[in-house]
Amino acid sequence: MSQDHEKSAPLERCFRDEETGEPRADFVAAVETAIAAEDADAVRALVAPLHEADLGALIELLGHEARPKLVELMGAEFDFLALTEVGETTREDILEEVPVETLAEAMLELESDDAVALLEMLEPKEQAQVLEALPAHERVVLRRSLEAAEGTAGRLMQTTLVAVPPFWTAGEVLDFFRATEPDVLPDNFFEVFVVDPGYRLLGTVFLDALVRAHPKTLVEDIMQADRRRVRFDEEGEEVARMFERYNLVSVPVVDEAERLVGVITIDDVVDVIQEAASEEIKALGGVNPHEELTDSFWWIVRSRFVWLFVNLGTAFLAASVLKSFENQLQQMVALAVLAPIVASQGGNSATQTMTVTVRALATRQLSRANALRIIFRELGTGALNGAAFGLITGLVAANWFENVGLGQVMALAMLTNLTAGALGGILVPMLFDRLNIDPAVSSSAFVTTVTDVTGYGSFLGIATLWFRLG
Amino acid sequence: MSQDHEKSAPLERCFRDEETGEPRADFVAAVETAIAAEDADAVRALVAPLHEADLGALIELLGHEARPKLVELMGAEFDFLALTEVGETTREDILEEVPVETLAEAMLELESDDAVALLEMLEPKEQAQVLEALPAHERVVLRRSLEAAEGTAGRLMQTTLVAVPPFWTAGEVLDFFRATEPDVLPDNFFEVFVVDPGYRLLGTVFLDALVRAHPKTLVEDIMQADRRRVRFDEEGEEVARMFERYNLVSVPVVDEAERLVGVITIDDVVDVIQEAASEEIKALGGVNPHEELTDSFWWIVRSRFVWLFVNLGTAFLAASVLKSFENQLQQMVALAVLAPIVASQGGNSATQTMTVTVRALATRQLSRANALRIIFRELGTGALNGAAFGLITGLVAANWFENVGLGQVMALAMLTNLTAGALGGILVPMLFDRLNIDPAVSSSAFVTTVTDVTGYGSFLGIATLWFRLG
Repeated sequence: MSQDHEKSAPLERCFRDEETGEPRADFVAAVETAIAAEDADAVRALVAPLHEADLGALIELLGHEARPKLVELMGAEFDFLALTEVGETTREDILEEVPVETLAEAMLELESDDAVALLEMLEPKEQAQVLEALPAHERVVLRRSLEAAEGTAGRLMQTTLVAVPPFWTAGEVLDFFRATEPDVLPDNFFEVFVVDPGYRLLGTVFLDALVRAHPKTLVEDIMQADRRRVRFDEEGEEVARMFERYNLVSVPVVDEAERLVGVITIDDVVDVIQEAASEEIKALGGVNPHEELTDSFWWIVRSRFVWLFVNLGTAFLAASVLKSFENQLQQMVALAVLAPIVASQGGNSATQTMTVTVRALATRQLSRANALRIIFRELGTGALNGAAFGLITGLVAANWFENVGLGQVMALAMLTNLTAGALGGILVPMLFDRLNIDPAVSSSAFVTTVTDVTGYGSFLGIATLWFRLG
Repeated sequence: MSQDHEKSAPLERCFRDEETGEPRADFVAAVETAIAAEDADAVRALVAPLHEADLGALIELLGHEARPKLVELMGAEFDFLALTEVGETTREDILEEVPVETLAEAMLELESDDAVALLEMLEPKEQAQVLEALPAHERVVLRRSLEAAEGTAGRLMQTTLVAVPPFWTAGEVLDFFRATEPDVLPDNFFEVFVVDPGYRLLGTVFLDALVRAHPKTLVEDIMQADRRRVRFDEEGEEVARMFERYNLVSVPVVDEAERLVGVITIDDVVDVIQEAASEEIKALGGVNPHEELTDSFWWIVRSRFVWLFVNLGTAFLAASVLKSFENQLQQMVALAVLAPIVASQGGNSATQTMTVTVRALATRQLSRANALRIIFRELGTGALNGAAFGLITGLVAANWFENVGLGQVMALAMLTNLTAGALGGILVPMLFDRLNIDPAVSSSAFVTTVTDVTGYGSFLGIATLWFRLG
C-alpha cells in the first residue's frame, strides 16, 4: 500500500485537464519534445512532480521508443512505482532497456507487493540477476512471494507488516512505533497483527482500537481473534470477492501452518476487481481478455483474427442451413429477406440472457440455490417476448409481402427461436461454469450458433411444410 | 465504513459451502421452512449469527413474501445493514412492510452513509416520517446528505468523523480518543482531520503517522496539507476513479467553502466500481443496466422487450436492403446463402472494436491525446482482418458454389464491411461519449446497423455490377 503521502497536488493539475480529468495533449506533447531533444532538465521539471499513477498514464501515451528514453533521462528520479500502473506491453518496453543494477536499486525503494509485480514481468534470467543484486533479507522475502502461483494471495500480499506478542500493552505498542526507524514500518498501515512465538496469527488490533484503549490494556484483550484471513494459495479473485462481501480494508495472509506471512490491502484488491471486470467485458465482446490499448498492432490483429475465425465457423454452419433450403429460397425469395430477422432477433434475445447469466455467475449471485428459478424465469421471458415479437414481425411480414401465411410462419419461427435462445443463453454459460471454463470467453459463439441454426432452420422448415415447398 | 468487528466467522460457515463459497441450498431451505412455520426462535438461531453481507445474500434467495416475514420474525435482532447489500427490488419488498418506528430505530444504529442508502429508497412521505422520528442532530445530518444529488459524493460520504484543531499535540489527540465515548467516534477510522475554527479542512493525519509521532509533536507538523479532497457534488464514478488512480483508502468531502462535511471510505467506493462494471456489461449485452437478478418477471420481460424492439428496427432496415435486391437473389440464390456471412462477420469485428472503445472510454484510457492513434489502429485492424477473411471466405465461396466470380465478390464485400465496421465501432461510441450519452447503452444497435446495411448492400451491390444482374 502506498497512499500519496508526500506528493503535492498543484503541479499534477498541469497533467490533467481540471474540467475533464483527461490527460492534456499539450502536456504530453511538451514531454515528447523534451525527450526528442534529450533535454533531461526539461523532462525532469515536467515529469518529476507527477504522482506515480499519472506518470504511468503519461508513459502509456508516449510512443514505443520514447518510453525507455524517458526512464533514462529521468535517471535516479524515475519513480518505478509508475510501472505498476501501466499495461504489460508498456512495462516490457521499459524493462527490456533498463540495466539490472538500476532495477535492483528500484526494488529496494518499493514495497514488496509492488516489487513482486515488477519482478514477475522479467525474463527468468534477468529476474535471477536482479534478485542476486539484492540484500539477503529482501531476496528471501521476494523469492517466497514469487514462488506463489500467479494471481494468488501470495502474489498480491505485501510482507512488510507490524506483528506484536499478545502480552504487550497498548502503551508498549505505541512506544514501539515511536522507537522504530520509520523505514522498517510499512508506509501506511491500519492494523497490528498479534502472533504467538511460532508466528502463528492469533488476531489483529486496528489502529483506531489501539488508540482508543487505555495504555495499560493488554493487546490480547482488544484484539479481534476471529479476524478473517486468507491462505497463501487462495485465488486473487476469491480474495477480491471476500473484500467486497465483507467490506474489508485489509486481510492477513497465512501459510498452511496458520503462520502469518503477509497482508493484502484493499488498493491491490481494487485493481483485481477492475481487471476482472475489464476481462469479462472484453471476453463478452469477443476480444482477448488480456488485450490492452497499448498492445502492438500486429498482436491485436492476430488475436482478433483468432476469435473471428471461430465465429466464421458458426457463420458457415448457419449458411449451410440456408443452402439446404436453396430450392425453397428460389421459389419464394421473401424467405431470404425475412430469415435473417428471425436469426438476429433470436441472437439479440439470447445475448441478453447470456449477459445476465455470465454476470450473475461472476458475482456468485447465481448458485445451485436459485438456478432452477432463474432458468424458468429466462425461459418464460424468452417465450413471452418470442410471442410478442412473433405477433409484431408476423403482422409486418404478412403486410409487407401481402401473404398471410408468411406472417404465420414468421410468428411461429420467432417464438421457437427466442425460446431456444433463452435456453441456450442460460444453459451454455452455466455448463461452461460447471466445467470450470470461463463462460464469458466461450459462451457467445455457442449461443449464436444455437440462434442462427434454430432461426434459419425453424423459419425455412416451417415455411417448407406450410407452403408445401421442396 | 463498518468492518466486521464483532461477528464471529464459524457460524457463517454454515451459510456458505466451505469449498465453493456458494450459499448452501439446505441452509436456505431450513430458513424458508422456519419462516413458513412462523418459528421465530428457529429463524433467529439460523439468521442472527450471519454477517450483514451473508444476510443480504440470504434475503435475495428467499421468495417475495418470505422477505418481509423474515424481518418481522427477527424483530429487534434484524440487522438493517443487510439492506445495503441487496438489490433495489428486494429492498423495496422489505421497506414497504416495515413500520416507520422500526425504521427510525434502525437508522440510529447505522452509520450515516448506510442510513442515507436506506432512506433514499423510501417514498418521500415515508422518508419524511422516518426523519421526523429521529433526534434533531441525526435528522439534520441525514437531510444534508439527502439533499445531495443521487450518485454524488454527498450521498456516498459518512458524516461521523474525527476533526481536531492544528494546535493540538499528537498526545492530546490520543488522550481525546481515550476520553471519548466509543459510540461518538466512527466504528472504524484511519485518519484524523485537521480543521480551522470555521471547519475548513487544513489537512489530515493518518493514524499510523499519529502513533509514530512523539506525543509533544503538533498536529500541524505531521498533517498532510495537500491531501486530495472531493467536492460534495462530485459524481460518484469520478470519485471512484480518483480512489483507483491514486490508491486511496478514504477521502475527505468538502462543501463549496472548503468546509469539511464528511468522509468517503473505500468500501463504499468498491461498491460503486463493481456496480459501474455491472452496468456497463449489461448495457453492452442489451440489458437494462439496472436489471437485477431479483427483479420481478414482468419488469424484466418489459425492459428486455424495449431493447429488442429497437433492434428489430435495425433488422427490418437490413431486410429492406435485402428486399431491394429481390431480383438478384432470385436469379442467383447463392447470394442469399452468403450475404448473412458478410453481415455477421462484419458485426462481430465491429463489436470487438466497439467493446474495446467503450471500455477505454469508461476507464478514461481513451482521450483526445491518443484518439487519432487508436482510430487509425482500429481502421488498420479492420482492413487487415477484412482482407484476411475476404481471402478465406472468397476461396470457400468460390469452391462451394463452383463460381470464381462469386468468390471475388465475397472477398471485396468482406473487406468493405470489416473496414466500415471498424470505423463504426470506434466512431459511434466516441461520438456518444462526446454528446454525454452513455456509449455502452447506445452504441451496439447503431454499430450493427452499419455492418448489416453495409454487409448486405456491398455484397449484393458488387454482385449486381459483377454479374450484370438487375
